[in-house]
Amino acid sequence: MSARLQGVFAPVLTPMEDRLAPATGKWIAFCKQLLAEGCTGLAPFGTTSEANSLGLEERMEMLDALVAAGVPAAQLMPGTGMCAFPDTVKLAAQAARLGCGGVLLLPPFYYKGVSDDGVFRAVAEVIERVGDARLRVYIYNIPPIAVVGYSLAVIERLLAAYPGVVVGMKDSSGDWSYQQSVLERFSGFDVFSGSERFLLANLRLGGVGTISAMANVIPAKIRFLYDNSLAENADQLQEQLDRYRAATRDYAAIAALKQILAERSGDPSWLNLRPPLVPLSAEAARELLARYAAA
Amino acid sequence: MSARLQGVFAPVLTPMEDRLAPATGKWIAFCKQLLAEGCTGLAPFGTTSEANSLGLEERMEMLDALVAAGVPAAQLMPGTGMCAFPDTVKLAAQAARLGCGGVLLLPPFYYKGVSDDGVFRAVAEVIERVGDARLRVYIYNIPPIAVVGYSLAVIERLLAAYPGVVVGMKDSSGDWSYQQSVLERFSGFDVFSGSERFLLANLRLGGVGTISAMANVIPAKIRFLYDNSLAENADQLQEQLDRYRAATRDYAAIAALKQILAERSGDPSWLNLRPPLVPLSAEAARELLARYAAA
Repeated sequence: MSARLQGVFAPVLTPMEDRLAPATGKWIAFCKQLLAEGCTGLAPFGTTSEANSLGLEERMEMLDALVAAGVPAAQLMPGTGMCAFPDTVKLAAQAARLGCGGVLLLPPFYYKGVSDDGVFRAVAEVIERVGDARLRVYIYNIPPIAVVGYSLAVIERLLAAYPGVVVGMKDSSGDWSYQQSVLERFSGFDVFSGSERFLLANLRLGGVGTISAMANVIPAKIRFLYDNSLAENADQLQEQLDRYRAATRDYAAIAALKQILAERSGDPSWLNLRPPLVPLSAEAARELLARYAAA
Repeated sequence: MSARLQGVFAPVLTPMEDRLAPATGKWIAFCKQLLAEGCTGLAPFGTTSEANSLGLEERMEMLDALVAAGVPAAQLMPGTGMCAFPDTVKLAAQAARLGCGGVLLLPPFYYKGVSDDGVFRAVAEVIERVGDARLRVYIYNIPPIAVVGYSLAVIERLLAAYPGVVVGMKDSSGDWSYQQSVLERFSGFDVFSGSERFLLANLRLGGVGTISAMANVIPAKIRFLYDNSLAENADQLQEQLDRYRAATRDYAAIAALKQILAERSGDPSWLNLRPPLVPLSAEAARELLARYAAA
């Protein structure tokens, strides 16, 4: 079994060609760049990656290409949670086979008001059907978008049923009290904060790091706090990070991050987004870039 | 161009084998039975069909099999709206190629808080990429589950951009004032009520019928109201239908309908549901069946 994942992960933005196909070559180069700049690992196919606007085949081809291009699979935690478990099983099985350090598992998110038992069974079906001892599952809790989330009772049941397989989570609830409850209640369960704004608090309670959209644009700064979380000035480092978030938080998150990358790289194709997402207006883009530059 | 769709459609329940694969043979027989019992058409792969727990390949194979088995494609309005437009395009193109009377199009439903412009572009991309003159799109508005819906402004824009292609909708908002607004504002736009409880009101304002989960269990009764909406006793007929809904509404809808079919057919495999859905408890099942029998 490989070392467990920790540190700073980027849910990698997905560059798109003008016809909105994934720009896989550019994406692989961006993945390598993020690792070079400070990410300890990558979570491709996250919410920020527009993964839920990518089809199963697209994701499978991209993941194969990424590993074939030499990005170490052990540092990857691809998002594999789709609405239909046969699709989730295919993608998670591929990730395990490639040696990915883990998979990030959204619950099925179409049907609402589902029971804890239903969420448990959804995860259990995937684990049983993948049937690969290499599979490591990180559950992905993001009720602000998926609406369906993971309750503490579900986590407890998963840990009892699948010890050593369900090993951690990404919490993007935005609710620190929830994340704190998970950190305090389940020892040995590796909690990544879904936002770098809770990174220091997460580490101080035994969390293992962050999978943060902002790591697409400021990986080195987030990594610096991660590496210096015990330093005297750690709170100041956290405050510095918070300024970047404050500069972007009034804008649609994925469009804003792509805008920053387009500006930085001089490559306007970074502005391409799959519907239902749309680019920022010209005015919002100017405002965002000015605020970001001043952060 | 074939006659436009109207009447009573069932979003067909999907029977599953014990290992949760679609029981395609049983499903085809059930589809034929529903048409024989009074449905004017079928909307396979709706919410009630657990379609969002079915993978793309599964849906494509089932649709091919259904038409190959002799169910008239012109009477079909399969659900084709998935999160990722390449998947939606594949399924909608197949439906058009097979000669389906229409496709029922959910908006992409993962990302929340999306703009009208984003929803419009999502539909536009599908229509443009399918690129088949036979395609007829019915938009599917179901914000209680999909969260993302279709505003009046989006409908207006779609009708202006794609006249004769975007031809109608299924409204499962549960919000009669919304449905009334659509009926009053857009003439020649074929509105199906997503619930038979609004069937009479829908027809009286120029709507074309209902695509109703209850049509899986009482197709003849709903059809009778549809055929007699101008009769003196139409309100009483509507009240009769409402009693069946009242008998089931306190239970998880899809589980409840499958419970009724299991009871009626003597085939317990009708109880199989894909996670995150789960069967009713034994106690709830008993209670439901008693209330339904007394309706």
